[in-house]
Amino acid sequence: MTGMNSPRALVFDVFGTVVDWRSTIIREGEALGKAKRLKVDWARFADSWRAGYAPAMGRVRSGELPWTPLDRLHRMILDQLLEQFEIRSLGETEKDNFNRVWHRLGPWPDSIGGLTRLRRKFVLATLSNGNVALLVNMAKHAGLPWDCVLSAELVKQYKPAQAVYQMAASLLDLRPEGGGYGGGAQRRSSRRSAGAGLRAAFVPRPLEHGPGRGADPGPHTGFDLVAPDFFDLASQLGA
Amino acid sequence: MTGMNSPRALVFDVFGTVVDWRSTIIREGEALGKAKRLKVDWARFADSWRAGYAPAMGRVRSGELPWTPLDRLHRMILDQLLEQFEIRSLGETEKDNFNRVWHRLGPWPDSIGGLTRLRRKFVLATLSNGNVALLVNMAKHAGLPWDCVLSAELVKQYKPAQAVYQMAASLLDLRPEGGGYGGGAQRRSSRRSAGAGLRAAFVPRPLEHGPGRGADPGPHTGFDLVAPDFFDLASQLGA
Repeated sequence: MTGMNSPRALVFDVFGTVVDWRSTIIREGEALGKAKRLKVDWARFADSWRAGYAPAMGRVRSGELPWTPLDRLHRMILDQLLEQFEIRSLGETEKDNFNRVWHRLGPWPDSIGGLTRLRRKFVLATLSNGNVALLVNMAKHAGLPWDCVLSAELVKQYKPAQAVYQMAASLLDLRPEGGGYGGGAQRRSSRRSAGAGLRAAFVPRPLEHGPGRGADPGPHTGFDLVAPDFFDLASQLGA
Repeated sequence: MTGMNSPRALVFDVFGTVVDWRSTIIREGEALGKAKRLKVDWARFADSWRAGYAPAMGRVRSGELPWTPLDRLHRMILDQLLEQFEIRSLGETEKDNFNRVWHRLGPWPDSIGGLTRLRRKFVLATLSNGNVALLVNMAKHAGLPWDCVLSAELVKQYKPAQAVYQMAASLLDLRPEGGGYGGGAQRRSSRRSAGAGLRAAFVPRPLEHGPGRGADPGPHTGFDLVAPDFFDLASQLGA
């Protein structure tokens, strides 16, 4: 970090980086399964739901679908999975409620404490493909201390479109000399955010896809900073 | 309120409703005046700065100016006022810093406590003509507990354009049966927000323009709810 000015704001990838989607979906799935007497492998269900995310966004990016907020993409994938897993006993309200499990994802153990420390020194914003209502509800439910909720929905383009990073830099008034970090769990975030004048920090989350299925084991090159968790990130950034 | 479903979210007008622009500008002006040995009537300066706001927005609305964030409109007005008040000793950094006094406005005495109570029950968002960076910095400085910062900047149109209210209803996923309140200090907010499916609450701030110069003394008709302060608003909404 030598020779770099300190950033003024940090923008965060959320799914996988700040919250643990897999455990929450498995837990809520199991509760639903018990209530409705379903026999479902909820870990496989959670993984399939998340696996449907990139292809669904791809349909929006290619123009096959018009702009569609993530809540609705999640619901399209859910409807397919309910067929595939032969779950036929859910009414509309139950489907809608289960779809909003993404609004109720739990944080990683270091997320609240680490972000709370970082917030004393920096403006903290989401920069997520989740729609605004999803991110707002998630923050309220999990107690995530954002100063600002920024979403791909604001420019109706999904990351890694550069317009998303540029939107954050513009709305937060980040000037080149005091640019923010994008905390990304994807390599692509690094290059794209650099194009918008942001520097990129990487927080590996080896448990994102479950124990023993380490996500993106490295080497973590091309980032300005790599931290094992948000407490360490706070220490590295002097917060 | 009989027969109405409870709202899920509250969106707030900020300048004058949540924060007291006049006192803060006078206080910072006096400090600047002392440091730079200026003889200025800072109350008149503050009133003139605020009075320039509507005409400056009007130039954007009419198309005479392209979209211009409020920070830059404030700066345009400030530059004129520095001429008018014959203040010629400020450098660029001092002008830029004084222009950001709008990022440092102090809350009314009931704002933090009332909003904190309301936040336990509702999603709280700004819906202001202030640009995002201004509102984020203000919230951080004053400790305003927003769940979400929404701004006219997101649709590049100033209130009372209906698009601003519609943006809030859409991004917060407010459905007609659980619509939000717009806490507006302007009558116009009432009709426009109703068009976006929002109901309107009015919190008079008789001191907005200074003692004895009561703003909008009433009667306050055309609102779904009128509350003298945010504690009373919380009580009326069961929070």
